Amino acid sequence: MIRIGMDIGGTGIQIGAVDEQNQIIAKTSIPTRTDIPFQDQVDQMVSAILGMMQPELNPLLTLDQVASVGAGIPGLANNQGIVIKCTNLGWNYAPLREEFQKKIDKPFYVENDANVAALAESVAGVSSGTSSSVFITLGTGIGSGIIIGGRIWSGAHGIGGELGHMILELDGVPCTCGNRGCVERYCSATAIIRMAREQVSVHPDSLILRLAEQDPLKINAKIVIDAAREGDPTAEKIYRRFIACLAQTIANVINFLDPEMIVLGGGVSKAGDYLLSSVREAVPQYVIFNDQPMPHIELATLSSDAGIIGAAMLSSDPD
Amino acid sequence: MIRIGMDIGGTGIQIGAVDEQNQIIAKTSIPTRTDIPFQDQVDQMVSAILGMMQPELNPLLTLDQVASVGAGIPGLANNQGIVIKCTNLGWNYAPLREEFQKKIDKPFYVENDANVAALAESVAGVSSGTSSSVFITLGTGIGSGIIIGGRIWSGAHGIGGELGHMILELDGVPCTCGNRGCVERYCSATAIIRMAREQVSVHPDSLILRLAEQDPLKINAKIVIDAAREGDPTAEKIYRRFIACLAQTIANVINFLDPEMIVLGGGVSKAGDYLLSSVREAVPQYVIFNDQPMPHIELATLSSDAGIIGAAMLSSDPD
Repeated sequence: MIRIGMDIGGTGIQIGAVDEQNQIIAKTSIPTRTDIPFQDQVDQMVSAILGMMQPELNPLLTLDQVASVGAGIPGLANNQGIVIKCTNLGWNYAPLREEFQKKIDKPFYVENDANVAALAESVAGVSSGTSSSVFITLGTGIGSGIIIGGRIWSGAHGIGGELGHMILELDGVPCTCGNRGCVERYCSATAIIRMAREQVSVHPDSLILRLAEQDPLKINAKIVIDAAREGDPTAEKIYRRFIACLAQTIANVINFLDPEMIVLGGGVSKAGDYLLSSVREAVPQYVIFNDQPMPHIELATLSSDAGIIGAAMLSSDPD
Repeated sequence: MIRIGMDIGGTGIQIGAVDEQNQIIAKTSIPTRTDIPFQDQVDQMVSAILGMMQPELNPLLTLDQVASVGAGIPGLANNQGIVIKCTNLGWNYAPLREEFQKKIDKPFYVENDANVAALAESVAGVSSGTSSSVFITLGTGIGSGIIIGGRIWSGAHGIGGELGHMILELDGVPCTCGNRGCVERYCSATAIIRMAREQVSVHPDSLILRLAEQDPLKINAKIVIDAAREGDPTAEKIYRRFIACLAQTIANVINFLDPEMIVLGGGVSKAGDYLLSSVREAVPQYVIFNDQPMPHIELATLSSDAGIIGAAMLSSDPD
């Protein structure tokens, strides 16, 4: 028995066949095409899956063996398999399950990609063995996935897990969502870049600007964190502010939900142990019962394959 | 079969015998005594329970019929029945279950009082019939209790549900906990009183001060809300700020956890429909997916008996 997992992103769709040991035994990818009708996009996914099963490529892989198909999307889906909102793909109330099953009639599940990554880590990654965890993606934006009792908890109405749009500062920095002070404006790569651009205009001698070839538009989160690690004072100041905001966000999750583990993933988490040790040091001061055992904070361990593996796992964990 | 529930508060302990229909069939109370040793406090609870069972008072109520005893405390307890921290009572790592069972050998459970109230509402109150809910007490402080899958979720380490100490404003108002910007500093009766005292010093003509007999020390949350309802501009300004903060706090709960229902209890919730309609109007603008179905917001319906009933229910719901 195998399960198909699809990691649908803004630029590409990664597709894999996953076996019962959660190993990817075949893999393919197609570009994300927002310039063609929804039905055609679905047809291309179907073709890619069938293409992966050509006898000359994978003689042991046939459609008969496929138990289910799962998809992770950068947006909101419901448990009827409808993608309610997915800005990057231009999908609104897109009947993904229905259209897909017209071509491949297998159980089909679709979930938000942060939920998918949370599930993958909790089954095959760093949080495996835990019953509850919160996975936080630190990327261009901030996403999160909640696991309770070993299952995805996306809320009673499926609108939970939006850690990035919890308000961390009353009347704070304006957010793309229309509100002010959302977590995403303080803890994302975008936030680091914004702070860095502001700071280099008054500290043009900063290592940040040198690493960015003197072009503020070339500043990214990695450059800022690298410069902080090198001891550049401007970068250190930005990094300290970022860590303080992230620590308060993580402490908010602990004070409210207290999962067994907090898992950090996404592009910014590639700063690795430097980030992890900063966060672990800063979080406890904001936890109200900080003399008690509290959640472990860890880095995600699954590679970019987590999206495929987690989506494939949805088959056994329909939310 | 009956179950005993004890609602242990800072000034008094309410004790009741609860039948299988969640009705209180006998009730007593004793003052909370922080001036005597812990063991003596427990002895007084035991005496009160046994006193309630005197044949001449309640001939049908005997210790044989008692299936379990539960206690709600304004603090932190673990599932070994130890009260880890309870500032109002001066208890630190107090072995409540162990001491109690030396006198009455029945299953004994102890939980934070907000969790107890959340459970009571979800079984016998406004949130009955829901599977997930978050109960928020708006009093001198802010507490919360989370119900998921019909059971109390106090976290993997029992330190969750501390909504009052989630940070709502980076570098905000100093909190008694040592941090800054905690929810409790913006959404509690204490916060309303603080804002009112500040405002009446510059607006001495406010109705607030008249209702408080010209004494700022007599201002309470009810006076401020009453004055706002009467259209006093100073009180309305404070009330609007309070509602905006509370709405953002509730929206944070929705964006992150998305329970089936949010229940508002505690002293401030006695403002009733005036408060409820303000909150219901203000919350959606802060919910990221506010074009989707979202949690109902309701007022708690159980009276002060919720503490007894919920504590008695702990017997069937050990966390």
